[in-house]
Amino acid sequence: MENKNKFIREAVNESLKSVESGGGPFGAVIVKDNKIIAKAGNSVTGDIDPTAHAEINAIRAAAKKLKTFELSGCSIYCSCEPCPMCLGAIYWARIEKVFFASKTETAQEHGFDDSFIYKECEKPSHLRSVPMLELKVKNSDAAFLEWDSKNDKTSY
Amino acid sequence: MENKNKFIREAVNESLKSVESGGGPFGAVIVKDNKIIAKAGNSVTGDIDPTAHAEINAIRAAAKKLKTFELSGCSIYCSCEPCPMCLGAIYWARIEKVFFASKTETAQEHGFDDSFIYKECEKPSHLRSVPMLELKVKNSDAAFLEWDSKNDKTSY
Repeated sequence: MENKNKFIREAVNESLKSVESGGGPFGAVIVKDNKIIAKAGNSVTGDIDPTAHAEINAIRAAAKKLKTFELSGCSIYCSCEPCPMCLGAIYWARIEKVFFASKTETAQEHGFDDSFIYKECEKPSHLRSVPMLELKVKNSDAAFLEWDSKNDKTSY
Repeated sequence: MENKNKFIREAVNESLKSVESGGGPFGAVIVKDNKIIAKAGNSVTGDIDPTAHAEINAIRAAAKKLKTFELSGCSIYCSCEPCPMCLGAIYWARIEKVFFASKTETAQEHGFDDSFIYKECEKPSHLRSVPMLELKVKNSDAAFLEWDSKNDKTSY
């Protein structure tokens, strides 16, 4: 049994450390076999990287540490419910369980766009606030066909 | 006026180069003032990084190059409609326009989970296929309060 209370407190602690060191108020911890594999805060401003949310940072660090892009068997503990970017990363990484302390609505109350982006995800692409337009290209699916026919590919 | 046809062809070209170099069949190009700022393929397997989609790679590179975590004034050209992770990254980066060649459904047909993850985003967290559980922590919003009261913070 994972020590859930300990790990979620670690994630909240990361969120506090993150603010103290100039980052955003978020933290995440990745756990496998009841051990912490990686922990991280938000470093968007410090790293000049809009993708450097705590969960993304923790996933990247855990993948490097375990030398695999599939974090199956891992849980992620987040100080706040993941935004759609981080939710997507969690699915792509095959993380199996998510635990969070604060809710998306709390992030919204403190000025973060998580709820807004969730609502945007639900809309058809042409109705989103950021315009998303399809452009026809002759060989647009060539890379997919190449991928399908490749025998030595590493699937992910 | 941006040379849309040229840039979307560049993105599709990146997707082909990506497969050739062992990556997934996706490419992205970021454009500002009618000039390419960054282009990238998918490097999930090569970089052992489940977040290394073409769009994320291109956003990270563009932010580094322009020395800002806000890519306002930029467009992104994607060989395929962005997945929720990349859509989230686009919103956080404040990219203003998205152009894509293939659609999410095409990615799905070739074995990629984009549509599935979009459907998961729409569900309340407790109904998703990856269990997402709230854990109560006494000071769960302490980092948000610290953030709010911080005068010298860099907002993002």
